[in-house]
Amino acid sequence: MNYQAKLHEYRSWLAAAVEEARAGAEAGGVPIGAVLVGSEGEILGRGSNRRVQDDDPTAHAETTAFRRAGRLRTYGATTMVTTLSPCWFCSGLVRQFGIGRLVIGEARNFHGGHDWLAEQGVEVVLLDDADCVRMMADFIAESPGLWEEDIGE
Amino acid sequence: MNYQAKLHEYRSWLAAAVEEARAGAEAGGVPIGAVLVGSEGEILGRGSNRRVQDDDPTAHAETTAFRRAGRLRTYGATTMVTTLSPCWFCSGLVRQFGIGRLVIGEARNFHGGHDWLAEQGVEVVLLDDADCVRMMADFIAESPGLWEEDIGE
Repeated sequence: MNYQAKLHEYRSWLAAAVEEARAGAEAGGVPIGAVLVGSEGEILGRGSNRRVQDDDPTAHAETTAFRRAGRLRTYGATTMVTTLSPCWFCSGLVRQFGIGRLVIGEARNFHGGHDWLAEQGVEVVLLDDADCVRMMADFIAESPGLWEEDIGE
Repeated sequence: MNYQAKLHEYRSWLAAAVEEARAGAEAGGVPIGAVLVGSEGEILGRGSNRRVQDDDPTAHAETTAFRRAGRLRTYGATTMVTTLSPCWFCSGLVRQFGIGRLVIGEARNFHGGHDWLAEQGVEVVLLDDADCVRMMADFIAESPGLWEEDIGE
């Protein structure tokens, strides 16, 4: 697959993560979404940040998508797709389980551990998607306290 | 409090984490336990690894204890106490949420991210507890496949 075709595929996965983020926001939650994608492009797990909905501080979007994929034996051929640069907790998840690729919607509103992951050999693709940037910027402006709580600041 | 008194307190917290690990093992799970302790020494959350019991690959002992403590505003005055050196996922949890102190039962059977956390300014106390070493060594010898799955290897 050439780079343009790959990029098209990554953007289609990101669209699924954005759907999750928007559904989470409609339910009163933090608008971050993620999907874990298998080697054939199939979605293995999907979810949004559920801090508010479940009163669960570990329910970041990436951990939710990962959890919903169930128990898998290996993750090297999977891709974690997230609307926002993953925090250290979710970056640690990617590293520990050896997830092979990370596709990120944007890293302007928050710069987590993705450089560290790239150094560790994870393939990191930063799409710098304008819709993701706007969605997160709007949320942070509207709910700064909830956002700071979510990242422990 | 002098160092001996502190050590005594850390060991009492570790005993609570070991209780969790043993209860988890009795339920067929991975024998790792953790407690999140507040600034007055009170236990805020406790739990064991629940990969088997809940079919949840994110339910490491530390994330379980953290989750059960509910939503807190800040974590700087809390201590994460775990029977085993935390993996990168759980180390990322400690870093992201600014947990101030980490007390570890042992790091002989698994050496996770605790050196990295110490570099980041987390107070790391390694107790090198013989019971913890034995509990984990016995489990790895009996269930190597489950252990490898738990750490994504």
